This record gives sequence, C-alpha cells and structure tokens, in this order.
Amino acid sequence: MDIETIAEKVLNGDRRALSRAITLVESSRADHREASAGLIQRLAQSGRQALRIGLSGTPGVGKSTFIESFGMMLTQAELRVAVLAVDPSSARSGGSILGDKTRMDQLARAPGAFIRPSPSQTHLGGIARRSREAVAVCEAAGFDVVLIETVGVGQSETVVAEISDLFILLLAPAGGDELQGVKRGIMEMADMILINKADGELKPAASRTCADYAGALRLLRKRPQDPEGFPKALMVSAIEQAGLETAWTEMKSLEGWRREAGHLQARRAAQARYWFREDVKRGLLAQLETPAARTHMTELGEAVARGEITPALAAEEMLSALRQG
Amino acid sequence: MDIETIAEKVLNGDRRALSRAITLVESSRADHREASAGLIQRLAQSGRQALRIGLSGTPGVGKSTFIESFGMMLTQAELRVAVLAVDPSSARSGGSILGDKTRMDQLARAPGAFIRPSPSQTHLGGIARRSREAVAVCEAAGFDVVLIETVGVGQSETVVAEISDLFILLLAPAGGDELQGVKRGIMEMADMILINKADGELKPAASRTCADYAGALRLLRKRPQDPEGFPKALMVSAIEQAGLETAWTEMKSLEGWRREAGHLQARRAAQARYWFREDVKRGLLAQLETPAARTHMTELGEAVARGEITPALAAEEMLSALRQG
Repeated sequence: MDIETIAEKVLNGDRRALSRAITLVESSRADHREASAGLIQRLAQSGRQALRIGLSGTPGVGKSTFIESFGMMLTQAELRVAVLAVDPSSARSGGSILGDKTRMDQLARAPGAFIRPSPSQTHLGGIARRSREAVAVCEAAGFDVVLIETVGVGQSETVVAEISDLFILLLAPAGGDELQGVKRGIMEMADMILINKADGELKPAASRTCADYAGALRLLRKRPQDPEGFPKALMVSAIEQAGLETAWTEMKSLEGWRREAGHLQARRAAQARYWFREDVKRGLLAQLETPAARTHMTELGEAVARGEITPALAAEEMLSALRQG
Repeated sequence: MDIETIAEKVLNGDRRALSRAITLVESSRADHREASAGLIQRLAQSGRQALRIGLSGTPGVGKSTFIESFGMMLTQAELRVAVLAVDPSSARSGGSILGDKTRMDQLARAPGAFIRPSPSQTHLGGIARRSREAVAVCEAAGFDVVLIETVGVGQSETVVAEISDLFILLLAPAGGDELQGVKRGIMEMADMILINKADGELKPAASRTCADYAGALRLLRKRPQDPEGFPKALMVSAIEQAGLETAWTEMKSLEGWRREAGHLQARRAAQARYWFREDVKRGLLAQLETPAARTHMTELGEAVARGEITPALAAEEMLSALRQG
C-alpha cells in the first residue's frame, strides 16, 4: 500500500490502516523512516486535533484500571479514545506492556476505543519520536482523546509531558510519613494530580494524601498557563468508577481555559520546536552509531583509559576523523 | 611564557604559574584551548596523583566552614590541599562563589593550601571540562588532596562525582519529617554522607538524621567498589572541629581499600572514557553554535511552530544543511 492510500484510509478511520501506519512510524528501517516522514507530513494537513492527555504513574497505582474506567466513561459519552504507551523499561523486560489489551479487557472491546501496546524496544530518544508520531496518526484518524501513558521510569515523564496538552500524575494513597518519591520536577510538570484507590479502607489515607499534594501544589509558583485553582489534586476510585466525571470536567475546564487564552496552541508550538531541536541533536549524535565510528570510539576510549592520551585530545582526533567522513 | 615554561614551573610548585595555568585551561579562546590541551598532555606525564574528593552540599549546610576546618586539619598534618569550586549557578548570580577566599579566611592564608574561586560563567559542559583540567593541573603541582566543591544545583553533582575519587555529600540536621530533598541518584553516588552541625542544640537532630541516612544507605545495594560497612553516614561539627579526624580516617581507609582492589584506577579509567565521550558529543553539538547555524535553527524552529513543516522534516533539512557546511 502506498503512503497516499494509507493516509486516506487513516483519515477515513480505517482500523487496519491505523495499525499499519503506527507500525510504520515505529519502524527504524531507513526506507520506513522516509515513508513515515512523508505520511506524517500528509496527515498533518487534516488539521484534526485530539485532546492529548499524558498520564504517569508507577506500577501499583492502578493505572490500567484507571485507563479502563476512564476510557469506558469517555466512550460511553460518544468520544473516541486512543491509548498509547511510552515504556522505556520494556526494552529490558521484553515488553512488559504487551499485555495492555488483556489488562484493559473491556476498553479493548469498546467500538470507540483503540489500544496500542508500546513498541518493545530501543532507547528513549527513539521511543519519543515514535510516540509523538503515533499521537499524530491517532489525531488524524479522528480520535477525540489520546491517552499517552508511561510508567514514569527515568526521563519518560518528560517525553510524555512534551507530547501532551495535559499531564496527569496518578498516585496511590500513602501511609503517614511514607514517601512516594515524587520528584519536584515531576510535580512542576503535572497539570493535575489524581489520587486513585479512594475506596474501602484506603479512603482515609487517600483523603490525607490528596490534601498533602493539594498543599504541595499550592506551594509551587502559579504558572501563567493555569487559571485560578490549578493545578488541582483530586481523589478518584477507578474500581468504583468514582470521581472520574469530576476529573474529566476539570480537565475539560482547564483545556477550555487554555484554548481561549491561547496557551494550548502556544504549548503545542513550543513542543514542536522542542522536538525539532531534539531531532537535530539526535541526528548529529547518530554519526557515532556507524560500525566504523563505534570501532574508532572504542579504540580511542581504551587509549584514554590507559592514560596514553587525554580525553580532550582523543575527542579532537575523533571529531577530525568524523569531519573527514 | 610558553607552555613548556609554565609546565615546568607548575611541576616545581610555583604558585603564580599554577594560577596562570588554571586561567589558561578555563579560557574559551580558541588559541588558549589549543595551548591548554598541550599543557594538560604535558603535565599528565608527571604521573602525580592527588586524592580527589568531591563535596556536594546545598547552601546552608555549612560547606565553607567545613572546607575551612577540614582543610586546616589536613594542612596541619603537612598535607597540601587545593580547593576548586564547580558552581553552575554563578553564571546567574554573577559569581556567587568569588568570595571563596574571604569565606575561607584561615585556609586561604595557610601555606599548604590553594583556593581557586569558580570560573564565573558559561554552561555546565564547559565548566565540567575546565574543572577536570584544573584538577589535573593541581595534581601535577603536587597537591596531596584536591577538594572539588559544588552547590548541588542541577547536574553539577554528576560532574563532580565524575572527576572525583571519593564523592562526599554534606547535609545539615533535619527536623522530624523534614525532607532534605536528596535524590536517590545522588544518594547512590555518595561514598560517604556527613551530617554537619552536630553541635549545640542541633546535636540530637544531627544524630537522628545520621541514623536515618545510615539506614537509607544500608537499603541501597552494596556496590562492588565498597568494602564492608560502606558507604557510611557520619556526624561532624565543622565549627567545633569534631568528627573531622574520623571522617578523614574513613576516607583514607576507603581510598586504601579501593586502591588495593584496583577500583581506584578502574574508576579513573572509566571517568577518562566518560569525559572522552562527552567531549566528542559536545564537539558534534557545537556545530549548532555558529551564527549561521543559530539563524537557520531559529528560522526552521519558527516554521515548525507555525505548523508549516513537521519537526522530523525540519530536522532533516537542518542536518543536510550542516552536512553541506
């Protein structure tokens, strides 16, 4: 199938073409990369936009159950929902997130929903580009909401925040002094914090945790892209389907405010610029990935380690070799 | 003065030549860069090695007082001590650490000590290379101990840890549930944690904090480069000069163990390899810093932000322009 045919079918909402297009943007083969660049440029002309919601939560916070319940609520409101995963750890675990569809059994069978397991390999940089392009494909296919989930390992929250309109942090209730190890940088990226598992005997703990985070969020400086009262911390129970409507209303209200104030488009523009710069940098560093460059780097690295040449002089030698091709 | 003359004087312990050599390696002028590379290569032949101690502590933990007391103790034991600062924030504050010599009044006047204020500018990458080369100059000048201090802003701990034999974290006593915001990654880098201000009414708090960190360190996996019982958390009082001898004995014991087991040389070799790779990467990315490249990046970035071209295609265009020079 040529690019134009795939593009048309994606734009018409064809599921098989959608899967195929995502497989194409996820491929690292050189010819696929080129075809993919053309496809993305073609699909971008549709001008369709989804609400892109980034969702970060460590294992154990009930992320799959949340996505299932939240996604079902959206599909029942006649919204079309795509779920993508950014999981840098799947490289090691051999695809920990491949079970997505079984984890989200109900949502996987809902007609308005589309769940895409995370690609099962490679470094974060590659995953970033692929996820970003997969989001673009889903938008062109006419989804209203694209949920991008990450397990929050290493820098993956930054990747997800840089491809989302809203970035949501999902947490579990914590005991009295228990730390959840949420870094300040992640807190500052969050547009909303949801404390899940606010049900049964965890409810009091969820309430305390929610108040703690609401307090912590108030201490952070108010950001120009936030209306009064945001970012918010709210309680939800994915299992009892409680608080999800409120959370969605708040997300829509934040989106509406930002759209009107021009912040939503400004954020997308800033993100596009960011990824452009990242792609250029990655392209420059890719010169080190050829077999010849790798061999040369290893040899020089060993001479440096033996103390035969200083790091600075060895680097000069390597750069000069790269310049000469 | 030519490079050979400076080198000889540095090797003979001439103070003015030492200052001059460090000024040279800190300069970003192209001709100075070249001279500096030659100087470092020449000085490396001396084979002299100091114990390089990296010291990280946020403002308020009493870092200057600690360095003053610890440095005085070392000079009184007939050891020659150099103090260097890695302070990425001085770019903004206009040289916050320039007052080093006045902050460390006694040590600055001690004959066996040398204090070098941090260079007052530029990005962390540049500071990293300069600090690393300044350490090499001090080693060649015959110092026994080189203390490299950082305020622990952003990535500066990583820079310091990557040029040190031992990496020490200096903390202040904390209240009951007060967090010191020590990231797990920093904890994992630390070879020793010192709780300062274990004096007066802060002593009980220091004791509790020390026990907390000792517990946290035990939870981290034992590293192959550590003998039994390390990394350790200890209490010190820089102001009362208490605990400093014990801390020094423990540092020497760790150094001795690592030297015997070959870990010290292995760490230096790994660090040299790391800096070689970093220098190569920085050299590749430096292509983006020419005025022409900056202009092109800005123009393409704006087209990307306006949605006229995708980030990926714009990056391809930029890379191809760079290839054509």
